[in-house]
Amino acid sequence: MYSLKSLFTILFFPFLLLSISAHSYTHRARAPCKEMIFFFHDIVYNGENYKNATSAIVGAPEWGNRTIMSSPNNFGDMIVFDDPITLDNNLHSPPIGRAQGMYFYDQKDTFSSWLGFSFVFNNTDYKGSLNFAGHDPLMNKTRDISVIGGTGDFFMTRGIATLSTDAFEGSVYFRLRVHVKLYECWKLL
Amino acid sequence: MYSLKSLFTILFFPFLLLSISAHSYTHRARAPCKEMIFFFHDIVYNGENYKNATSAIVGAPEWGNRTIMSSPNNFGDMIVFDDPITLDNNLHSPPIGRAQGMYFYDQKDTFSSWLGFSFVFNNTDYKGSLNFAGHDPLMNKTRDISVIGGTGDFFMTRGIATLSTDAFEGSVYFRLRVHVKLYECWKLL
Amino acid sequence: MYSLKSLFTILFFPFLLLSISAHSYTHRARAPCKEMIFFFHDIVYNGENYKNATSAIVGAPEWGNRTIMSSPNNFGDMIVFDDPITLDNNLHSPPIGRAQGMYFYDQKDTFSSWLGFSFVFNNTDYKGSLNFAGHDPLMNKTRDISVIGGTGDFFMTRGIATLSTDAFEGSVYFRLRVHVKLYECWKLL
Repeated sequence: MYSLKSLFTILFFPFLLLSISAHSYTHRARAPCKEMIFFFHDIVYNGENYKNATSAIVGAPEWGNRTIMSSPNNFGDMIVFDDPITLDNNLHSPPIGRAQGMYFYDQKDTFSSWLGFSFVFNNTDYKGSLNFAGHDPLMNKTRDISVIGGTGDFFMTRGIATLSTDAFEGSVYFRLRVHVKLYECWKLL
Repeated sequence: MYSLKSLFTILFFPFLLLSISAHSYTHRARAPCKEMIFFFHDIVYNGENYKNATSAIVGAPEWGNRTIMSSPNNFGDMIVFDDPITLDNNLHSPPIGRAQGMYFYDQKDTFSSWLGFSFVFNNTDYKGSLNFAGHDPLMNKTRDISVIGGTGDFFMTRGIATLSTDAFEGSVYFRLRVHVKLYECWKLL
Repeated sequence: MYSLKSLFTILFFPFLLLSISAHSYTHRARAPCKEMIFFFHDIVYNGENYKNATSAIVGAPEWGNRTIMSSPNNFGDMIVFDDPITLDNNLHSPPIGRAQGMYFYDQKDTFSSWLGFSFVFNNTDYKGSLNFAGHDPLMNKTRDISVIGGTGDFFMTRGIATLSTDAFEGSVYFRLRVHVKLYECWKLL
């Protein structure tokens, strides 16, 4: 009893609605498609700790230098890092990947930074990378940055990472807890 | 003759097809899900204006330095900024947030830059951040960069920001008009 | 008494739920919505090649400088580039755009870098830009970075770019082959 017309209607009418409204509505997320918690550990080069250092100041304002953070608030200091990622808060736990990228201090009147980096995994659990970018007002207990993409197991992913400072010692060591919440997951068939 | 059941069938059968071919078609956007216009103001440190400066050169090529833009075309100069955001083009209007991040000049034969930064809001209208990245050929009247993510009120958002130089004074002050057009909006339930 | 029709209903009713909770499932991609292959060419300033150089070291760790890559593994060196894009592997082919942005070396024990840059096109085939970010472990034969957005013909696009080092001469010249695979395409109506 289905005529050709009604068949068309059946098959394609909803596509019309969909294609029209496709991006006029707001995506609603109830829960992440994937969640993970990691720690990473940053030891800044201070002129005397080359062997242990995992990061180094590579840019600084005119009033700064590359072995001591600039004053006040480290404003303008840019740091490149190659930090171990661990599953717990112990610097000496076996690293399961590297956090590699940069951050710089970008506020004159308090400590705040901006991050552009990747988590790089090549182990039995995860192979691939997660790419992050965003603003990190590090005096706040928690703060969110963006997961802007990924590769391998994290192909095309997007989400949020909630950072918290788990520990710090002066301006030479800090440990960040990273709660990764992916809301857009992709699979390459 | 359409029963309620067959109506359901008519409406939802295509979703099967859709979910299979989900990313073989092109998203069509008619209008942004959210639009906003802001201004931000950048005063570059020149060796004598520390108090008023909102940004500083932190990297430069071998032929440059950190108080004067390199010649020609500022190529290679990298600037970290902490700029006030206002709703109009007046530097002295009450700031409604901060534009924090970096830009660097990346063209040898003209003025052009690349931006990685955030808009950071914490007021009654907006709480959260927008993260931007992209190429800014600043001699063009308007140019588009990407909104690559956001947090808080701008959770997971994506879009385009159209920049225009609203004013500049030499290489020490400039004001950008930013027309934010978000095409992907998300709500966390 | 399940008719064929009601069976259909049973099978596809859940898609209704799906469309409401749109992002609890995983996007499946079979093939890119667009693919392109480009080459770009980087000639690093070494103190003597200003005229031909397409890039320059603008940041370096305390033990480095801005005319020679730091040792070991260039760790901490940050480079701003303005590189020609060609359709084949010949540096002297007519450029079809510019690759503009930065990279920095971010691993202490091997050569590895992180990239933030744009492809900028303004020709008969393409107008607009592609924005990239990601981790580039350059000793690997191929490696993937993220396409985090785009403008113009590449409005709102996302995807992956597979990089391979097509040639290099010491630390002054390298040529990257870039296989761009876009999985999220958008059209502004």
